[in-house]
Amino acid sequence: MTFNRTPITVADAQSQIASFIQTGETETVSLLESEGRRLAEKVKATYPIPHFRRSGMDGFAVRSKDTEGASPEHPVLLSVQEEIPAGSVPTKEIIQGSCSRIMTGGVVPDSADAVVKLEDTDNQQFQTAVKQEMQAGANVTEIGAEMSEDTMLLEKGKRIGPGELALLAMFGYVHVEVYRQPKVAVLSTGSELLNPEDPLQPGKIRNSNTYMLAAQVKNAGGQPVIIDQVPDDADLAKERVFDAFANADMVVTTGGVSVGDYDILVDIFNNWDGEMLFNKLQMRPGSPTTVGVRDNQLLFALSGNPGACFAGFELFVRPVLWGMQGKESFYLPEFNAYLAEDFTNKGSFPRFVRGRSYMEDGKVFVQQVGVDKSSIVTSIKDADVLIEIPPGKIELKANELVSVLKLNVAE
Amino acid sequence: MTFNRTPITVADAQSQIASFIQTGETETVSLLESEGRRLAEKVKATYPIPHFRRSGMDGFAVRSKDTEGASPEHPVLLSVQEEIPAGSVPTKEIIQGSCSRIMTGGVVPDSADAVVKLEDTDNQQFQTAVKQEMQAGANVTEIGAEMSEDTMLLEKGKRIGPGELALLAMFGYVHVEVYRQPKVAVLSTGSELLNPEDPLQPGKIRNSNTYMLAAQVKNAGGQPVIIDQVPDDADLAKERVFDAFANADMVVTTGGVSVGDYDILVDIFNNWDGEMLFNKLQMRPGSPTTVGVRDNQLLFALSGNPGACFAGFELFVRPVLWGMQGKESFYLPEFNAYLAEDFTNKGSFPRFVRGRSYMEDGKVFVQQVGVDKSSIVTSIKDADVLIEIPPGKIELKANELVSVLKLNVAE
Repeated sequence: MTFNRTPITVADAQSQIASFIQTGETETVSLLESEGRRLAEKVKATYPIPHFRRSGMDGFAVRSKDTEGASPEHPVLLSVQEEIPAGSVPTKEIIQGSCSRIMTGGVVPDSADAVVKLEDTDNQQFQTAVKQEMQAGANVTEIGAEMSEDTMLLEKGKRIGPGELALLAMFGYVHVEVYRQPKVAVLSTGSELLNPEDPLQPGKIRNSNTYMLAAQVKNAGGQPVIIDQVPDDADLAKERVFDAFANADMVVTTGGVSVGDYDILVDIFNNWDGEMLFNKLQMRPGSPTTVGVRDNQLLFALSGNPGACFAGFELFVRPVLWGMQGKESFYLPEFNAYLAEDFTNKGSFPRFVRGRSYMEDGKVFVQQVGVDKSSIVTSIKDADVLIEIPPGKIELKANELVSVLKLNVAE
Repeated sequence: MTFNRTPITVADAQSQIASFIQTGETETVSLLESEGRRLAEKVKATYPIPHFRRSGMDGFAVRSKDTEGASPEHPVLLSVQEEIPAGSVPTKEIIQGSCSRIMTGGVVPDSADAVVKLEDTDNQQFQTAVKQEMQAGANVTEIGAEMSEDTMLLEKGKRIGPGELALLAMFGYVHVEVYRQPKVAVLSTGSELLNPEDPLQPGKIRNSNTYMLAAQVKNAGGQPVIIDQVPDDADLAKERVFDAFANADMVVTTGGVSVGDYDILVDIFNNWDGEMLFNKLQMRPGSPTTVGVRDNQLLFALSGNPGACFAGFELFVRPVLWGMQGKESFYLPEFNAYLAEDFTNKGSFPRFVRGRSYMEDGKVFVQQVGVDKSSIVTSIKDADVLIEIPPGKIELKANELVSVLKLNVAE
């Protein structure tokens, strides 16, 4: 049994899926464990920076008025009360005619209003000759001068990298609230599939989509849940899909959607208690990609062709993973780039061609990688963009601007 | 005690360090565990693709000479022997006047030399009318047509992402030899440092460098080994560094190298049984960065300023981690980009300014992020490039091309 297929645009498909995206549950992890996760809380400055009057120089904390008229010819002599290294607190007031030795980063005593650079003094034991008149405030960073308390630093959904981790540590976020990693069940279908450990057999091919998808899920911040692959048996596949829903946030299948396959996924969408969103897309590769929803859980039935499967994940599954983890923008970043070589499209559907970008003299170029037969898996590793080719018979020339989607997003 | 400091260039420093880079040990992990790791073996096609004569169409496997003269007006009638789905093997020879129903991906019987598309036939029970003359070889992909056996697919040192994982699965690499993740001990020094969990105290600041570096180490494929931070106590620091050498491949410290600090790292380099490579660099921030070697283990003494510490890792530590994991190119990728805004340099050293890149109409622009005081940690999170500013008093204008180093490299 099949059903009518009315192709919709990729944008329409994405917006239908987006209506089911909800930010997920959160959990609390330690500072170090938070690396690579996405924030589920806003991060603010919990105190001003600096939080004490800080010396910007290695030198002497002074009262500026004591230095009035000081010059190399007529230095002012001040008695040295103590030494204030970074990390310690001053114990002595700076009274008239006195000063304290202070290191960069040290606490400037309340009674001092300037720091004289070491180079502008001549030092003897217990006293120093200041050779320059100081302005009030010179070389003293006042409380909050670099950052006020409550400054908004990190929004929810931000991925935690080195710079974020530094801020979390600095502001005492010992435990960090992050979004839970969405669980994505991955199920490949097809009687022709062997496991990677199986010996080759005539007519059979090894399942590579499951492993490719697992890596894509991880890269998008999710946890793959690998389901044993199934042959072309709709009942068994349906059982596995429904079991998978119980143990994962969503299910991604490959195979069984194309005309000419044993369309076991079509069978599932025809005989379930869920809703099918669409079953035909205006895109190559991957036009038979089918997506449905059951009890608010998404079922993505991707094509079994590795290239179509790869693109299907990036265009439709990744946005859900990102959205669940609070990322502000769900979709692959888009930019314009120069085509490195002529490109001819013959089809009536837009194409998403795997490409590689490179920079030259301030310009960004993109080039198709490998032979873009969707059955050929070798070019996936070389792609860092999907080049968007408009539909219709068109001939794009080298150095024309095309729109591309960025893969391998690290943010 | 201090020593003379002769500033060397960043390139000289990198090349001195490079002479100590050796690819590390290897280990065997499962296919799924190999995600994100770097290959320590070359990966070849262990069989040709396809490894059987494969049908490219849904239709009928025929002997082309049986279809001579066939046309819609004068179709050729062939008897249908069996059905060959993908994943099964044909059991019947195609003898004169016969054919077999075959699916896309199915095994073409040896005795057939073409596949007729389903659309070019009219089907009845047990026989089909072929409406088109077929050329020998039509719609049949011969063994090895897509890839010969032993085709080189992945070089040592390649990072394993979705496309690489797919190839490993396809070619039966159930266990994958990868480079061990280098262990990097991280030790922050300074009497002013608090742990993130400590309450604030006047004059003290929370240690953020340790956590930033831990994330940088992970991002470069290494394992951070966090050492308890030490106050300005050279003996204690030396003990911790030497202990760390026993438990890690290399040690990275922060602080204690600048003039005006209690130069405890300088003390270590003056009183150890290792060799100091350099202790002054022609770069800002991070000019006092010091690197030494003891028993073939590197000690990187980075500046305590977060910005300098961040850049020091990217320029000097990351290459060693990449090199140990077999990556072909050790250094951050470099490209030219347009400056988004005027930039004035005053210093006599080249600068590495944290910047953000963006694309516009096929051009790549870079813009300085935040205030680039190396003490200000907030801009690190926003940086995806380091802009290389030449030394000397120069005024760079907006739309001038500058050289930049790419951060957050995912490959």
